[in-house]
Amino acid sequence: MRVSAANGVDYAYRDTGGGAGGVPLVLLQHFRGNLDNWDPALIDALAPARRVVTFDNAGVGGSSGTTPDTIEQMARDAIAFLTAMGFSQADLLGFSIGSFVAQQIALVRPAIVRRLILASSAPQGAAGMHGWAPEVIGAIGTPHTSPEAYLDVFFTQSAASRQAGQQALGRMYARTEDRDAATTWATREAQYDAVCTWGIPHHALLQRVSALGMPVFVANGDSDPMILPHYSYLLAGLIPHAKIKIYPDAAHGFLFQHHAEFAADVQSFLNGPS
Amino acid sequence: MRVSAANGVDYAYRDTGGGAGGVPLVLLQHFRGNLDNWDPALIDALAPARRVVTFDNAGVGGSSGTTPDTIEQMARDAIAFLTAMGFSQADLLGFSIGSFVAQQIALVRPAIVRRLILASSAPQGAAGMHGWAPEVIGAIGTPHTSPEAYLDVFFTQSAASRQAGQQALGRMYARTEDRDAATTWATREAQYDAVCTWGIPHHALLQRVSALGMPVFVANGDSDPMILPHYSYLLAGLIPHAKIKIYPDAAHGFLFQHHAEFAADVQSFLNGPS
Repeated sequence: MRVSAANGVDYAYRDTGGGAGGVPLVLLQHFRGNLDNWDPALIDALAPARRVVTFDNAGVGGSSGTTPDTIEQMARDAIAFLTAMGFSQADLLGFSIGSFVAQQIALVRPAIVRRLILASSAPQGAAGMHGWAPEVIGAIGTPHTSPEAYLDVFFTQSAASRQAGQQALGRMYARTEDRDAATTWATREAQYDAVCTWGIPHHALLQRVSALGMPVFVANGDSDPMILPHYSYLLAGLIPHAKIKIYPDAAHGFLFQHHAEFAADVQSFLNGPS
Repeated sequence: MRVSAANGVDYAYRDTGGGAGGVPLVLLQHFRGNLDNWDPALIDALAPARRVVTFDNAGVGGSSGTTPDTIEQMARDAIAFLTAMGFSQADLLGFSIGSFVAQQIALVRPAIVRRLILASSAPQGAAGMHGWAPEVIGAIGTPHTSPEAYLDVFFTQSAASRQAGQQALGRMYARTEDRDAATTWATREAQYDAVCTWGIPHHALLQRVSALGMPVFVANGDSDPMILPHYSYLLAGLIPHAKIKIYPDAAHGFLFQHHAEFAADVQSFLNGPS
């Protein structure tokens, strides 16, 4: 579906509708990902209890506009989408670069964010976050990516994780109609500029997330090579009201590999005490 | 036993000797604790594989001298003890205020610390660490403490944790000969001044522990009311090479309640890859 926002961008999105009504759960996607890169198994596991909305941010995939090169502008663009959808409040699930954008939304406009889920995330300014490791950007930052390179970053080398990865890819590519437009090289360049800018070491900026007053759920795989689980501990230690879970034998795509367990944990968190 | 150090202090200590030789494991005690406040079950679980040394820092229990009112001076006093013992290198297990001292030792004299275990700990300067919560200092900070008040801080309200607490107290009080001297009110006052000074909020000081280059094991109970497990996540996120474990249904005394599991985890950490 498409919605036109006040910033002039036409956003591509998918909306499961239904759920128990109430606050929608809006998902913010990873580096170079479009609508098709959300594992349908995760969406299906979340949707019975929630209205789940995925969208392409400005310039990404099927959305119009230009991908900006800062997390700050991506957050403004995402707020424009939330406003265009008429959401006065939402729960946000940000994944990877999407989790950086989700943090920024929650800091810029805290009233719109009821609860926040940060998957494979890190706080701005943390030491060691200045761009992905060479083997990671070498695998998934090239002009033409491959399923093998994707698996190397999103899943571990264990047989169980590899099999889960193959299954996730199979589900993502099972859709044959109404596939989203591919993300462009311009989007890749702008997003990686934003990731590197966000990752410039600046210890004082770690204090930013201490202003997140809503409940936060921090989650990652125990073997994520893209954003080390180390940074999930840092987030959980800096945010006043955070719970944390690290999933076993899992990498960047832990939420696809452990989709049933993660969806149950998300529901429990969203329904939990404030 | 007693050893005289170059700073003029005669330190009271206990030494299991034996173990597999090699680097001794030196334990640094909690607020108001003396040698008798180490649960013998924990020492017995650690001792077969290690030489385990407990000691009273300057001015505490059976040691001579004056308890200083800063963590910095406590670290100098502890280094004087390590030097007097002839330890060119040691593994340190710091518990509560002892973990603050252990951090400081590892920052001031990193070469002497092979590996570091921080039990119920927090980094200097963390928001919310300015003194214990009123119910905690009200329980264990009074002139005359009680077993019940101790249990309220060191163990949870569950039947299993309470029973473990009663058993730990029974073991601590089973010794009838060569008991250590009680800690004084002057020690209590100086230690709490040091705790409050250490806890003055100062975000920039969080960066200090990023200089800890040795392997670190961060551990706490999931329900510690004295130093929230929140701060263990913060430490594990700030220290470059940290592992973390949070023990279930346990409070400040998690390492006594789960003495067998914790001792096994400590041995695994001390023998693990660097």
